[in-house]
Amino acid sequence: MLLAKSTWPEIEVYLQHSKTVVVPIGSNEQHGPTGLLGTDWMCPEIIAHEAQKASPDLLVAPTFNIGMAQHHLGFPGTISLKPSTFMAAIGDWCRSLAGHGFTKIYFLNGHGGNVHSIEAAFSELYAEASFAGRPRGFACRLKNWWDLSGVNALANRQFPTGHGSHATPSEIAVTQWAYPDAIKSAAYAPKIAPSGPIREALDFRARHADGRMGSDPALATPEKGGELVAMAAKALVEDVAAFSAEAAPG
Amino acid sequence: MLLAKSTWPEIEVYLQHSKTVVVPIGSNEQHGPTGLLGTDWMCPEIIAHEAQKASPDLLVAPTFNIGMAQHHLGFPGTISLKPSTFMAAIGDWCRSLAGHGFTKIYFLNGHGGNVHSIEAAFSELYAEASFAGRPRGFACRLKNWWDLSGVNALANRQFPTGHGSHATPSEIAVTQWAYPDAIKSAAYAPKIAPSGPIREALDFRARHADGRMGSDPALATPEKGGELVAMAAKALVEDVAAFSAEAAPG
Amino acid sequence: MLLAKSTWPEIEVYLQHSKTVVVPIGSNEQHGPTGLLGTDWMCPEIIAHEAQKASPDLLVAPTFNIGMAQHHLGFPGTISLKPSTFMAAIGDWCRSLAGHGFTKIYFLNGHGGNVHSIEAAFSELYAEASFAGRPRGFACRLKNWWDLSGVNALANRQFPTGHGSHATPSEIAVTQWAYPDAIKSAAYAPKIAPSGPIREALDFRARHADGRMGSDPALATPEKGGELVAMAAKALVEDVAAFSAEAAPG
Amino acid sequence: MLLAKSTWPEIEVYLQHSKTVVVPIGSNEQHGPTGLLGTDWMCPEIIAHEAQKASPDLLVAPTFNIGMAQHHLGFPGTISLKPSTFMAAIGDWCRSLAGHGFTKIYFLNGHGGNVHSIEAAFSELYAEASFAGRPRGFACRLKNWWDLSGVNALANRQFPTGHGSHATPSEIAVTQWAYPDAIKSAAYAPKIAPSGPIREALDFRARHADGRMGSDPALATPEKGGELVAMAAKALVEDVAAFSAEAAPG
Amino acid sequence: MLLAKSTWPEIEVYLQHSKTVVVPIGSNEQHGPTGLLGTDWMCPEIIAHEAQKASPDLLVAPTFNIGMAQHHLGFPGTISLKPSTFMAAIGDWCRSLAGHGFTKIYFLNGHGGNVHSIEAAFSELYAEASFAGRPRGFACRLKNWWDLSGVNALANRQFPTGHGSHATPSEIAVTQWAYPDAIKSAAYAPKIAPSGPIREALDFRARHADGRMGSDPALATPEKGGELVAMAAKALVEDVAAFSAEAAPG
Amino acid sequence: MLLAKSTWPEIEVYLQHSKTVVVPIGSNEQHGPTGLLGTDWMCPEIIAHEAQKASPDLLVAPTFNIGMAQHHLGFPGTISLKPSTFMAAIGDWCRSLAGHGFTKIYFLNGHGGNVHSIEAAFSELYAEASFAGRPRGFACRLKNWWDLSGVNALANRQFPTGHGSHATPSEIAVTQWAYPDAIKSAAYAPKIAPSGPIREALDFRARHADGRMGSDPALATPEKGGELVAMAAKALVEDVAAFSAEAAPG
Repeated sequence: MLLAKSTWPEIEVYLQHSKTVVVPIGSNEQHGPTGLLGTDWMCPEIIAHEAQKASPDLLVAPTFNIGMAQHHLGFPGTISLKPSTFMAAIGDWCRSLAGHGFTKIYFLNGHGGNVHSIEAAFSELYAEASFAGRPRGFACRLKNWWDLSGVNALANRQFPTGHGSHATPSEIAVTQWAYPDAIKSAAYAPKIAPSGPIREALDFRARHADGRMGSDPALATPEKGGELVAMAAKALVEDVAAFSAEAAPG
Repeated sequence: MLLAKSTWPEIEVYLQHSKTVVVPIGSNEQHGPTGLLGTDWMCPEIIAHEAQKASPDLLVAPTFNIGMAQHHLGFPGTISLKPSTFMAAIGDWCRSLAGHGFTKIYFLNGHGGNVHSIEAAFSELYAEASFAGRPRGFACRLKNWWDLSGVNALANRQFPTGHGSHATPSEIAVTQWAYPDAIKSAAYAPKIAPSGPIREALDFRARHADGRMGSDPALATPEKGGELVAMAAKALVEDVAAFSAEAAPG
Repeated sequence: MLLAKSTWPEIEVYLQHSKTVVVPIGSNEQHGPTGLLGTDWMCPEIIAHEAQKASPDLLVAPTFNIGMAQHHLGFPGTISLKPSTFMAAIGDWCRSLAGHGFTKIYFLNGHGGNVHSIEAAFSELYAEASFAGRPRGFACRLKNWWDLSGVNALANRQFPTGHGSHATPSEIAVTQWAYPDAIKSAAYAPKIAPSGPIREALDFRARHADGRMGSDPALATPEKGGELVAMAAKALVEDVAAFSAEAAPG
Repeated sequence: MLLAKSTWPEIEVYLQHSKTVVVPIGSNEQHGPTGLLGTDWMCPEIIAHEAQKASPDLLVAPTFNIGMAQHHLGFPGTISLKPSTFMAAIGDWCRSLAGHGFTKIYFLNGHGGNVHSIEAAFSELYAEASFAGRPRGFACRLKNWWDLSGVNALANRQFPTGHGSHATPSEIAVTQWAYPDAIKSAAYAPKIAPSGPIREALDFRARHADGRMGSDPALATPEKGGELVAMAAKALVEDVAAFSAEAAPG
Repeated sequence: MLLAKSTWPEIEVYLQHSKTVVVPIGSNEQHGPTGLLGTDWMCPEIIAHEAQKASPDLLVAPTFNIGMAQHHLGFPGTISLKPSTFMAAIGDWCRSLAGHGFTKIYFLNGHGGNVHSIEAAFSELYAEASFAGRPRGFACRLKNWWDLSGVNALANRQFPTGHGSHATPSEIAVTQWAYPDAIKSAAYAPKIAPSGPIREALDFRARHADGRMGSDPALATPEKGGELVAMAAKALVEDVAAFSAEAAPG
Repeated sequence: MLLAKSTWPEIEVYLQHSKTVVVPIGSNEQHGPTGLLGTDWMCPEIIAHEAQKASPDLLVAPTFNIGMAQHHLGFPGTISLKPSTFMAAIGDWCRSLAGHGFTKIYFLNGHGGNVHSIEAAFSELYAEASFAGRPRGFACRLKNWWDLSGVNALANRQFPTGHGSHATPSEIAVTQWAYPDAIKSAAYAPKIAPSGPIREALDFRARHADGRMGSDPALATPEKGGELVAMAAKALVEDVAAFSAEAAPG
């Protein structure tokens, strides 16, 4: 069930039997010579939308498509929020949803660079309650789609070498499966890109000339993407169910 | 041309002949008994995506899908940013895009309640430059899709009565055209909803029991939506061209 | 009744029969070769003070004299708040007044450039309540003095050409009536100033060499100013009365 | 010379021979049973306006009329900014003025409760430059009007007992001199009000039932006010001249 | 009793008979050619720790060691918070402590440059309650260690000339007494340093070549430091007891 | 070399041959029935101070002693910053140090709950440069003391069971070694504490009645603490050296 394609009375009915909502969250940032700029928000969106087809009771919010990608700003097309802006926006999303009665807000994340800011945003939300000495009333969970049960293992089998950590063949494969009209190709040099620390954008671009980090995107295929989506969608439903079932204390 | 489905080298090439980008911006908020929660971000997205099919040189950014909808928070499914959060996020989007060399940033808006906050966000961006005594380096423009040339006139012809100002038959028709699988129906009472001032969410819900403002959404049809999209898409291309052609002063 | 010339026990008594207060709000910014820098805060102050002489039950707060004038910062004497600062200050004014029991806060505005920021400030105040799911307890209204009933029509009759949108003969006439000792003159070239978009300060000054926008201030006279003040003051009393009479929902 | 009654070309000329501007700053807050709510912004305004009559080269900005009066919010009519808002606004005023070339910004203050926040605002402005390792380009000075040379001594002679620290006979006398139409009277009990620490508004009102702190406002007369204004205006001109003459280091 | 060396159950027990906590607060900033960078946070820490040895019921929090020292940033080793950051942090400290039941929070300060920001932070905390119309629930007090009863008088006897206002022989003596292993020496030229206004860091360093303000640190001895500590520690216990004994109003 | 016990000329000399500084950072928060409230800031301070004794060229800044511990606010004595405040303060520390010429800022962390906020603070600092399209000029590194080479392995050997994740025997052992006068004991029930998710303070206290998470602090001894400190101090010197040696690109 897609929240954006629902009416408010439908959400009101939904809340009578479930208080959980899934928010796909990612980033719009360079993904090397062939990866789509939208890769990191498309992947969790693709997986979550696929999951709700089979499990109509999974409610999926609109996609939070701009995240924390400051280090990629040296490459055209990247759009980033500052961590503080990102945290404020996550806070408003959660307060909006909690105001309707949602008590479990599950973020399916597609960008590793988002993790610290999202978790800090959760802490900021919890801190409001902690400083006031009152219950928060809702819980947040962050899950990277590649950390869903079985997904990393599958990617390792699919791409025993050249997976890397940015513009990976697995994420590119997912977008190839979903958007076959947008498959790009390029000659990569070197075949596997270098790795290094992540700092400001100029530093990043100096270290990673074409934007990849340790990856060989040429390994991606739509078929492998489809396998990843199928596994992730199934695992998502189970992980969300476990989160929903978790009892709030006293 | 869709930015999210492009690679960074493609955007780099694009910037060699155009410095303009279009950002669909809207809101995710209640739209009465039958309007989709995503109506206000779907409409500008639908129009902008349609426009770039015919005019591939129109670059369309990802959709800014959560806006300023505080007054709708009394209805389940609404997600809103506070004006201050919204302004910070718009600022980061614009600074990201301007950093790549875009000098004209065009927001195609789908939610009347966004207007003041978006314009204030532009002023905040300009003020940074004004206080520093330096040129800003880019210009922003806000256009509501219904204000594109010919669109309001068409809507008035299509819906001589019962158009209203929220959950209007024109915006619902646009989403019906794009998402025929998600057309909903309901018995409206009264047929045309009441109007009134816009204040906090509890006040709004007390004044507008089912969320509509002055509208009769039953008048919407996918065909009328298609007419609106066609006219708006054409006018968008022309309006963006005029903005692009506008010279920056000395 | 002027709040600043009252004592707190007098305001306590006032609140027993009225919960409405009028705040003149404007800007201190260049107004062309002959317009006073204080024009935009003087005009609503002049009108509101005049109105309360005839209607002693109209309570007028001190004048909020610095607004959002970032685009005029290229001209000496302009003082501006950033939109975010302006919004924070409006918020504190309203919270202060609401804390005493005022439920209707009416801003009589003298600067078009303030409108978006003031409305965004109102939304920020309402959003506090909407996110908390509680009533706000007060309502805000913004009215430009030239939009008071009959005023624009009078100005159009007085100045059929050359009115323009900044450093207009109507606003200059109002200050001439109130401060005849401060009437200035200059040779204008061109007689009617150019118009154009409003962006950062350097851009504005490049487009508008002497600060005027589309206006011919030489048309102003103290007599015309007096007519405008008389009409606006009368209309203000009526508009405030209508706002005061408006019932709050359930 | 009053900035608000000047045109921008007049300020441009002024800046050719002086870089100093005086900003009257105060507060709008309860001043006991008979003191005007505007007392604390009226006093510095009255003194600064008087001073510039005799010394036309003294440039006086519009009055910053709302300050930090959180502890008085328990009394109707008080309007306060939070310290953080106040600091942000002072920052924008100073950045605006410095952008025009003013290098000495002199705040003539009328409210003791403002002092810490104003000084912290100055530090925030200086810190911007200090963190950036660059010169600030302007200097700020804060002076309470009662600390101008000779003023406190005169007040002590005029009011050897019952001066106190809030709603003092000296500040009330100044407003009586300037606004004889707004002189109020009341029976004070006790004659001299109690003193105590300053904390939140409820605490303040519990300690100070009628708002006075240690003062007997019945001692005020317009004549004494006139003496205070004359002495303060003269001392202001001298103090501003000394500030203007102070050289900036290398 | 040192809070950091206690367990939470010990603090829980402490709160059954006392609601007061002492926070040493200072700055880490240049102190001339021989003064330790930590001087300003070490002094209140030394005094407070000494005091609690003799009065175990005095609860001393961890030291707030970085304050507002923007003007010293031109000298290596200085670490400063902006006033706004400093105020936010003081706010979180106080809200944390108040949440446990502390009603009297006493800051023993070691840096004159902190005073305005700390007092503004207190006002910000009080303002939260004042705007909400509720009691704050705790009171804050700021005391500079040199203002404790008898301390300034002792310092004046010890250093009749050359005390100055920064890198003073009294504060250096206190650190010499506590850290005899870290006593430094230098040839000072001039013997007594110049004074002047405090502005941004570059200005400060231009006025004060070696960092001192009006002081001759060569006068410091560990013995004099021990005398100062003894007197200050005794006075601290008494001053805290008076603060603890102060009743909160109705 | 301890920065706080140095003078500014000594730091100026230090900067001629090293641009690296180590900042111990932690938290002041409950650590179960016997752990000191200061455990998390004491541990990195103890280790860093020990390291610089053997390696005098290691420069250690004052300890950042209050971190992000919102979830522990249900236990008396905990002092926490909100993530946003924490990030602002880390930013000011880093900007201060970078202003002196430090290019490598190494945070030795003692609190797992700090990690996300510290990393987000680094991103915020980098983002300032990335949005401006300029080099940042310095790099930050975060290292938890237990992640220093060999330390976790040693702790696993020392405490094969009952180590847990909060109030661990390893961190308590470190403080026992450093502060043998402050060793506490208690009867733990259950012997090994429960684990669970981390949310707001009330939820945390409901899940963890005595504050421990999965740990048996009774296993701690000062001797084990000494072993941990020795290994960590040695590894810290090596890790800092590697960070210092890392070249900045281009």
